[in-house]
Amino acid sequence: MLVTVQRITKDINKEIAKTVYGKEPIELYEPISYIMDLGGKRMRPLLTLLGYYIFDEEYIKIMKPAVAVEVFHNFTLMHDDIMDKAALRRNKATVHEKWNTNIAILSGDVMLVNAYKQLMQVDEKYLKQVLNLFNETAAGVCEGQQLDMNFEALPSVSIEAYINMIRLKTAVLLGFSLELGGLLGGADKKSCDYLRTAGTSAGIGFQLKDDLLDVYGDAATFGKQVGGDIIANKKTYLLIRALEKADDKTKKQLENLLNDATISDTDKVKKVTAIYDQLNLKEETELLIKEYFDKAIDSLGKVKGSIFRKHYIRDYLLALIEREQ
Amino acid sequence: MLVTVQRITKDINKEIAKTVYGKEPIELYEPISYIMDLGGKRMRPLLTLLGYYIFDEEYIKIMKPAVAVEVFHNFTLMHDDIMDKAALRRNKATVHEKWNTNIAILSGDVMLVNAYKQLMQVDEKYLKQVLNLFNETAAGVCEGQQLDMNFEALPSVSIEAYINMIRLKTAVLLGFSLELGGLLGGADKKSCDYLRTAGTSAGIGFQLKDDLLDVYGDAATFGKQVGGDIIANKKTYLLIRALEKADDKTKKQLENLLNDATISDTDKVKKVTAIYDQLNLKEETELLIKEYFDKAIDSLGKVKGSIFRKHYIRDYLLALIEREQ
Repeated sequence: MLVTVQRITKDINKEIAKTVYGKEPIELYEPISYIMDLGGKRMRPLLTLLGYYIFDEEYIKIMKPAVAVEVFHNFTLMHDDIMDKAALRRNKATVHEKWNTNIAILSGDVMLVNAYKQLMQVDEKYLKQVLNLFNETAAGVCEGQQLDMNFEALPSVSIEAYINMIRLKTAVLLGFSLELGGLLGGADKKSCDYLRTAGTSAGIGFQLKDDLLDVYGDAATFGKQVGGDIIANKKTYLLIRALEKADDKTKKQLENLLNDATISDTDKVKKVTAIYDQLNLKEETELLIKEYFDKAIDSLGKVKGSIFRKHYIRDYLLALIEREQ
Repeated sequence: MLVTVQRITKDINKEIAKTVYGKEPIELYEPISYIMDLGGKRMRPLLTLLGYYIFDEEYIKIMKPAVAVEVFHNFTLMHDDIMDKAALRRNKATVHEKWNTNIAILSGDVMLVNAYKQLMQVDEKYLKQVLNLFNETAAGVCEGQQLDMNFEALPSVSIEAYINMIRLKTAVLLGFSLELGGLLGGADKKSCDYLRTAGTSAGIGFQLKDDLLDVYGDAATFGKQVGGDIIANKKTYLLIRALEKADDKTKKQLENLLNDATISDTDKVKKVTAIYDQLNLKEETELLIKEYFDKAIDSLGKVKGSIFRKHYIRDYLLALIEREQ
């Protein structure tokens, strides 16, 4: 499995390295190369190529539309980083920090246009369908980001609303990635739907795993600061569920910790984690992640095509959900 | 002429009034309706519909792609207003002022996606061509905005660079608008090129007229503050040309006025205008506008199709260039 995923990832990075987004003015195009070159798992184009690979070995033929999804994803990161006032991404300065906010806005805009341009490099018979799916997905991702910002200001958020937010913000693009590959590989309508469902379910599981790793990740392997979400009072699955599940006394304790402006970060992380432990949230979240993963695998099983090739997707999704970073 | 243009504009506004951009979250979609409802000349969809009208009276058939161009234009305004820190647009609060910057960024993003979605409502046989042209145009508009921002920080800008900037920032979209209409009406390749050239030339003339009106507009009919560009030291055609054309002494006077932090706005406008007068810049700019207009009309003349119908475009372009507001 790994050999194939590694080889495809290498091909994706090769394609990204040779992609020219535009020439002048350089202020507009340098930030695009910069953010694209920061690296990452290349999860989205990888899913597209693996979806295609079920039907045709020569995934290289759809490299451009696959990379388009990565361009779109990085456009959302560039704009999200402005909105979140994030200074770092993958331990490097974010675009609005390295250049400025105006450049990050405009460079992101032209990046979105470029994503469309690259996505259009598909067989013309698929063009309309691909773009319709993409438009819907892209609007969904924006909606998810807006919901995420809205949640910051709300006193409480339901689990249902939270899952819907991460579905839009993260999961629909993974669903689109997988479906795009299948579609371009010639999958029938039903199989395309199953691929999308598989990607979306796994995407929700992926984000829940992110929430879990923030608390229970190993500081040595986890890329970010463990407890970062707790320090920022971020409404993650664990926090929302804790506030829902705790008895009155524990809920009060937790709320006091969230509102305590004098507590040290280390102490806050330790005490909030203790409450999560007490409420058995690690196990509960792991179970929920497994549910979404099982749903993804179930859906994948219904896709017509080589079982052997579908296993690459299964194994990759499993690796995403079992990852420690 | 006016009757037709007025009728088409009414139809455009009717279409815009009934367009739904999305439902939830409302923070994302309300600003879109808000900026679209601020009004304006609806110049871009009008050009599209007039371009189509050369070949087919029933322009209503392409109302959605025509409005797509207006959606795209307003997306650029929403983001430009953030970058320019503009508080007002058409005497109403800008989106980032009325809501906030994050909402203006994200709402703009989803607006761009919506522009693609609406633009795709064309006969499938034109889809690829329309989108290729649009991608190129949209990237050009972003490049123009970046150049405009770059120019603010430069000590001097050449006329050539300035014309190239306004061509990208303003004119290419007018060229695209007109070409889109012709293309959807069934114009041949050459006629499409001539329509684009006509729109682009007129667009440059249109922007030069804007620069001129800022100085020589009648305060009673001009929508904005006369002299606003002078107060802001904006590198307009007139300022660039004045710095180029003036003798050393006058140039020094002008530079002193630009750097004088204590001078009153009224005084500055009066004194800079006096220099422009002395250099005969009003007449010179008017001549240049006429050149671009003549080029537009010449190009329009080469478009195959009803001469009578093409006259609507001619008259409309003339009205744009002779406008007093």
